[in-house]
Amino acid sequence: MPTRQPELRVSPDLAAAECLSDHFRTVRNRTEALAAPVSAEDAQVQSMPDVSPTKWHLAHTSWFFETFVLRDFDPGYDPADPRFAYLFNSYYDGEGDRQPRPHRGLITRPTLDEVRAYRARVTDRLTALLDAGDAREDWPQLAALVELGCHHEEQHQELILTDIKHVLAQNPFAPAYAAPYPKRVASAPDHRFVAFDGGAVDIGHAPDAPGFHYDNEGPRHTQMLTPFALGSRPITNGEYLAFIEDGGYQRPGPWLSDGWATVCAEGWRHPLYWRETGDGWQQFTLRGLQPINWDEPVCHLSFYEADAYASWAGARLPWEAELEVATAAARHDDANDLGSGRLHPAVAEDHGTGGSSGHGLAQLAGDVWEWTRSAYSPYPRFAPHAGTVGEYNGKFMCNQYVLRGGSCATPPGHWRPTYRNFFPAGARWQFSGLRLAKDL
Amino acid sequence: MPTRQPELRVSPDLAAAECLSDHFRTVRNRTEALAAPVSAEDAQVQSMPDVSPTKWHLAHTSWFFETFVLRDFDPGYDPADPRFAYLFNSYYDGEGDRQPRPHRGLITRPTLDEVRAYRARVTDRLTALLDAGDAREDWPQLAALVELGCHHEEQHQELILTDIKHVLAQNPFAPAYAAPYPKRVASAPDHRFVAFDGGAVDIGHAPDAPGFHYDNEGPRHTQMLTPFALGSRPITNGEYLAFIEDGGYQRPGPWLSDGWATVCAEGWRHPLYWRETGDGWQQFTLRGLQPINWDEPVCHLSFYEADAYASWAGARLPWEAELEVATAAARHDDANDLGSGRLHPAVAEDHGTGGSSGHGLAQLAGDVWEWTRSAYSPYPRFAPHAGTVGEYNGKFMCNQYVLRGGSCATPPGHWRPTYRNFFPAGARWQFSGLRLAKDL
Amino acid sequence: MPTRQPELRVSPDLAAAECLSDHFRTVRNRTEALAAPVSAEDAQVQSMPDVSPTKWHLAHTSWFFETFVLRDFDPGYDPADPRFAYLFNSYYDGEGDRQPRPHRGLITRPTLDEVRAYRARVTDRLTALLDAGDAREDWPQLAALVELGCHHEEQHQELILTDIKHVLAQNPFAPAYAAPYPKRVASAPDHRFVAFDGGAVDIGHAPDAPGFHYDNEGPRHTQMLTPFALGSRPITNGEYLAFIEDGGYQRPGPWLSDGWATVCAEGWRHPLYWRETGDGWQQFTLRGLQPINWDEPVCHLSFYEADAYASWAGARLPWEAELEVATAAARHDDANDLGSGRLHPAVAEDHGTGGSSGHGLAQLAGDVWEWTRSAYSPYPRFAPHAGTVGEYNGKFMCNQYVLRGGSCATPPGHWRPTYRNFFPAGARWQFSGLRLAKDL
Amino acid sequence: MPTRQPELRVSPDLAAAECLSDHFRTVRNRTEALAAPVSAEDAQVQSMPDVSPTKWHLAHTSWFFETFVLRDFDPGYDPADPRFAYLFNSYYDGEGDRQPRPHRGLITRPTLDEVRAYRARVTDRLTALLDAGDAREDWPQLAALVELGCHHEEQHQELILTDIKHVLAQNPFAPAYAAPYPKRVASAPDHRFVAFDGGAVDIGHAPDAPGFHYDNEGPRHTQMLTPFALGSRPITNGEYLAFIEDGGYQRPGPWLSDGWATVCAEGWRHPLYWRETGDGWQQFTLRGLQPINWDEPVCHLSFYEADAYASWAGARLPWEAELEVATAAARHDDANDLGSGRLHPAVAEDHGTGGSSGHGLAQLAGDVWEWTRSAYSPYPRFAPHAGTVGEYNGKFMCNQYVLRGGSCATPPGHWRPTYRNFFPAGARWQFSGLRLAKDL
Repeated sequence: MPTRQPELRVSPDLAAAECLSDHFRTVRNRTEALAAPVSAEDAQVQSMPDVSPTKWHLAHTSWFFETFVLRDFDPGYDPADPRFAYLFNSYYDGEGDRQPRPHRGLITRPTLDEVRAYRARVTDRLTALLDAGDAREDWPQLAALVELGCHHEEQHQELILTDIKHVLAQNPFAPAYAAPYPKRVASAPDHRFVAFDGGAVDIGHAPDAPGFHYDNEGPRHTQMLTPFALGSRPITNGEYLAFIEDGGYQRPGPWLSDGWATVCAEGWRHPLYWRETGDGWQQFTLRGLQPINWDEPVCHLSFYEADAYASWAGARLPWEAELEVATAAARHDDANDLGSGRLHPAVAEDHGTGGSSGHGLAQLAGDVWEWTRSAYSPYPRFAPHAGTVGEYNGKFMCNQYVLRGGSCATPPGHWRPTYRNFFPAGARWQFSGLRLAKDL
Repeated sequence: MPTRQPELRVSPDLAAAECLSDHFRTVRNRTEALAAPVSAEDAQVQSMPDVSPTKWHLAHTSWFFETFVLRDFDPGYDPADPRFAYLFNSYYDGEGDRQPRPHRGLITRPTLDEVRAYRARVTDRLTALLDAGDAREDWPQLAALVELGCHHEEQHQELILTDIKHVLAQNPFAPAYAAPYPKRVASAPDHRFVAFDGGAVDIGHAPDAPGFHYDNEGPRHTQMLTPFALGSRPITNGEYLAFIEDGGYQRPGPWLSDGWATVCAEGWRHPLYWRETGDGWQQFTLRGLQPINWDEPVCHLSFYEADAYASWAGARLPWEAELEVATAAARHDDANDLGSGRLHPAVAEDHGTGGSSGHGLAQLAGDVWEWTRSAYSPYPRFAPHAGTVGEYNGKFMCNQYVLRGGSCATPPGHWRPTYRNFFPAGARWQFSGLRLAKDL
Repeated sequence: MPTRQPELRVSPDLAAAECLSDHFRTVRNRTEALAAPVSAEDAQVQSMPDVSPTKWHLAHTSWFFETFVLRDFDPGYDPADPRFAYLFNSYYDGEGDRQPRPHRGLITRPTLDEVRAYRARVTDRLTALLDAGDAREDWPQLAALVELGCHHEEQHQELILTDIKHVLAQNPFAPAYAAPYPKRVASAPDHRFVAFDGGAVDIGHAPDAPGFHYDNEGPRHTQMLTPFALGSRPITNGEYLAFIEDGGYQRPGPWLSDGWATVCAEGWRHPLYWRETGDGWQQFTLRGLQPINWDEPVCHLSFYEADAYASWAGARLPWEAELEVATAAARHDDANDLGSGRLHPAVAEDHGTGGSSGHGLAQLAGDVWEWTRSAYSPYPRFAPHAGTVGEYNGKFMCNQYVLRGGSCATPPGHWRPTYRNFFPAGARWQFSGLRLAKDL
Repeated sequence: MPTRQPELRVSPDLAAAECLSDHFRTVRNRTEALAAPVSAEDAQVQSMPDVSPTKWHLAHTSWFFETFVLRDFDPGYDPADPRFAYLFNSYYDGEGDRQPRPHRGLITRPTLDEVRAYRARVTDRLTALLDAGDAREDWPQLAALVELGCHHEEQHQELILTDIKHVLAQNPFAPAYAAPYPKRVASAPDHRFVAFDGGAVDIGHAPDAPGFHYDNEGPRHTQMLTPFALGSRPITNGEYLAFIEDGGYQRPGPWLSDGWATVCAEGWRHPLYWRETGDGWQQFTLRGLQPINWDEPVCHLSFYEADAYASWAGARLPWEAELEVATAAARHDDANDLGSGRLHPAVAEDHGTGGSSGHGLAQLAGDVWEWTRSAYSPYPRFAPHAGTVGEYNGKFMCNQYVLRGGSCATPPGHWRPTYRNFFPAGARWQFSGLRLAKDL
């Protein structure tokens, strides 16, 4: 068996019981808030195998705390229902058999209300455990797992949004998850390329860096980059429309071979949620069907579409190391636009040439996940965490591509510049767009 | 275009407005009662393409009245929601496009509560229309369509039960639709064959016979039968177990070619809801998981299994005309066991040799639908009803087999001896069993 | 197990060894003649699961004689190769495991030449056996099985033609199986309906009638027919084109529900081998791609298309008993146009009103198989032949429809008025067309 | 559009017309020799979509020369048949529509003999063109394309072997492509790990290096490696059996998530051509079914199986740069075992500790392709060749993994240390095995 990483350690700012308890409850409450507009019917449906019902997300994140924390650190704890281990395990083989993923939407019991009660029970019990203080000997292990569980739950917060969007989009009458948002009238700044030097760069999470990270973000290591340039902002809907209107979906030229096969098999003609209506192009959003704002970043693209656009535009997708270097070099205000609550990517602001301390790249964080050309592979000397939680990332390092940057659906505080998101090349239901790159 | 039958006529006993209004409300209330134990989550799910969500049944039966009655006979009526025509049309091409059948479970809005409100609105409006009396000139047409709509709704009442059974069965923990029923300890009477003469027999609904019938039950016509015998009761679970234990599912010998291919492809090893557990054979029922009562009629068989059993037993399935002749000759008390509320087939009672007026066949009506060897084909000179409601039966007369007799889920009063139910040869989720026949 | 029919008996005119030996060699030679234009490459390919490679047909028909005759009646016989039993058994479960049907095209060895040698070996050995004379005690059994094997081989002769047509049609450049045929310039006679009385009619093969029949053609029995009319000839390409041009493939109205689903799933827009080219409508024939002759019978229709056409035309498909009655009443010259060698249906000749002895229906035999509305079911009191050869027909009596009349690919002498051909409702690669019927 | 590489240049040792003509004819002849044992039937079959018929390989490689050389450099040349462009184009979108890949096996015409004549025609014409000498102005372009065509044809030589192996393996009776080979009785040397320093290494084909390379092998660039060790030889059948016997195929632990899903879906229990028989483990080889030699390298593994084995063994798969570095450092005799004609991997020889000049790694070239952990991605600053031949590699850089080292089926002279082979993670029909690696 491969080497395991040293045990997880809790982040310094959450090491005190009081802080961790606060953080835990904040995360749990945010999940409930996200699920609040979702009816029992909405919460039941699995609109495709990749999507999980909201009810399942609510239960699974509770099962995670129950299984990896309460079971081991709270001896008197009785599981809410022994059957939940079967129903709400996601993919932890170490935890036994489970409901097949494509059939999560078939489980009508427990009901949504019962799952909410389950959540409350787990939250209360774990709060009590944390509030009992950090004097216990095994506090470091306990705290580390609770922090991990919070990050895990934040990932599911993003999925709750992207999954319910897919569910509601199946309804021909386009019901909205949330009320419309005041429109910001703005033009996207001109697109330009910003040059970066190449050379040996260090990427990945440093072992002694503060703050949480997943095992797949390390170890920190050196890569060689050749000189490159990155687009000053993500590609917009308007720019993507030009690709469509140039016959982008009608001939194989700019496509990877697998991509063109997917275009043909799926009948793709535009990004996932676009609809060509009698009133022109519209797109389905979490706030209902709306006319497309051409200045916003294009999103709900597959890797194939992002790559084809880049090829058509005479450019390429960035490597993940390029984006990490650029993000690390960004001024804080260039990078951080997460958790705005807009539930939709915003028009980029003009950062000019980046001034004295920055390079002027807009929207490096938030708005849309940016597809990279990097296959999702282990970093050199990668080793997973010890224990069942070590199943977290490593076994998915195959046939997927890395996305960087976070999206409008990523919870505030969840993202960091070393963050590696990953999806198969054909996935389109995340808030995924692209930024161009080229060789210099 | 083929000849159409004369217009529908209402049954004499429902011709008066008061009677029809009573009947209509009784049927509608029964539907609501059947759906009462179903949660919003249960009511949302489509567990396979053949199954419809309870919510959809509730809405579709209302759309039927709205479309074929209120729209044409109540000029001031405003449809509850113009989008429902798309969502809740089943297969009436004359009524335009509709939600694809396999995707009925994806529509989360309207919610179950909204659908219940829709039902109430339609029920109230139609009640008012009927209560306005039968003096109007077009009363005959109106009354005939309301009666048709009630029979249509009764069919969906049976489907509500068989569909929710399938939905709940997907849950590994077998939630019950209803509370357990007191057990009746009884032994099935011995199985014997009862002889019938052949000759020219008339079957089908006579044009001047009282009472409702579907177009597919007519015209009444003559068929030639050779002498035959029918089993005195349906085959029991215990008898079917002998087939299983004799390797019935393990070699192709007794099977039709398509049947054996299905056994192999689906991995069938026993009837649909049987489970072999550590505690012996159990079966999933609407009242939860229960030990199998070997004296009850076997049910949830496909045509393939019924035919294979008959072949293994040295017999054959009956022709539909044979069962109709036998049912017509039955004393009332032999035939009628519908609507018991047991929600499960009962052990047969011993009718002896049938006494002076009957032939002693048990369970000719109710308990289980009995597969026949008859392909579902139009009777000679069949013609569908005029108008869109004429799409009701004719277009399904292909690749299906006829079942006779009604089941424990058939509403009381819905069935009659000429009734032709039909399903594809591989369908197992109805309460379908078999009675043996043989040539004399 | 169901009752078995009495043992097969040989037809009187083949009862003498000399006659049977002649007949046997004639049939075998005809198979070789049909396969002569087929290259080793052509003979290898299985273009869809329903199609078998020519090589397989050549071998399988030899395996049939080897297994059911030589093995049992020629004690010194050594099978050519013990592996052939696995490779060339079709569906006789009693004979053990076999190559899965959809993978017949994957078996490259034995080669075509080796299979031809296998054929010669079996033919020679069996000829020797027959030429040894009919004095042996078990001659009746032997002779009956040889006759059955000849009929079996004739069925495969038709399949060799329909299957190689399908294989060659996959080639975009439409290679021909045979040289073009001199065109007969003729117009189809006007279509009219010919009336028949109803009443009790006897159909099926009489037990004491001379000549061979399959088990599925009996027992002879009585059916009740209501008065009906049949079209004077099959529907032509030109008449079918009117259906296409009226939007026949574009709206569900005239279709059975399963039929319309198939149209949508398969993208059907015209009969199987039609192609709309820059030079107008063409069709692929065994003699290459040719302009469509609008006066010829339309063929390569599915049951669904035949039924939809009839419905669109305000008529219906015939019942098989109706066609059998009409064929039995036909003058010989009305009926028999089989084995012309044209390899394509011919334009009908005008039989006028049928003269003194006939009813004037053209093309009742040969040209195209005519779909009937009759599901392929056992006749009353049907029982299969004893032994493994009894697997011949009974187990396919499910989800298929009966065709009557023979086609331009049916061997001369193979067909008779009681002959029941059968295929699933979606099958189109046989020479299948339709004749209209209606109720009087 | 992305930058294109400079035009192809011919290798110095083939720059003279005489040399190139010799080389061309040698390659063409070798193809014919490989196809010689293949019958017309064998050559016709496509046993799965990934496999092409031998006939297609023979034709396609000729079409390549016809299209990219004769069409442009031999003005008087008339294509053998204009239809071949449709039939025998593989995936060059720039050359227009073509026969869908999964349907290559359906094209029975041209026959194998006709394709052999086509080959001869192209070979003769091109030989004449080359023999006309290198004085022509466009000789550099012509020569470069002929060299490319030869390498292209060599790749298809390997595929002819792996594809015909797959075709013959479908036959339950395991026909052999070639006669058995004298067995070499030998034990595999002990497996040990050989250490390598990390640091910055240069990999990829240098622009001024002599000899041919594909576009995907460049540009040469620097990568950072951490210290690592490589197994002294590929893993043997015996070692792999231990993994099987330890339940390797029975639990998800060592598998990538996609890998385990594939194991379950495909029912994998051992490498592709292994069969567990009454006589113990056997494997299908190009020389027929043979008992497994446990000392030979295991082969016909998928990436998933190679990765699972490595994980189970506490190691990992190598990165492609690690293998390239090791191969570059190898003594010639360590590396080169290609083209032996054995058609099967050989038992490794013991290279000891590698002596003065080598590191002692056995079988770095030939025997089995070794799966690496490297996703097949473009090297930094990769640019495809100009023109349609530039479709050669780039568009496949997605969802595939790199293999290194060549196999027993790779033509002699075809391979070089920078060679990047690539297949999807589930592919098993190549001669693919593995060598272990680990971090130091």
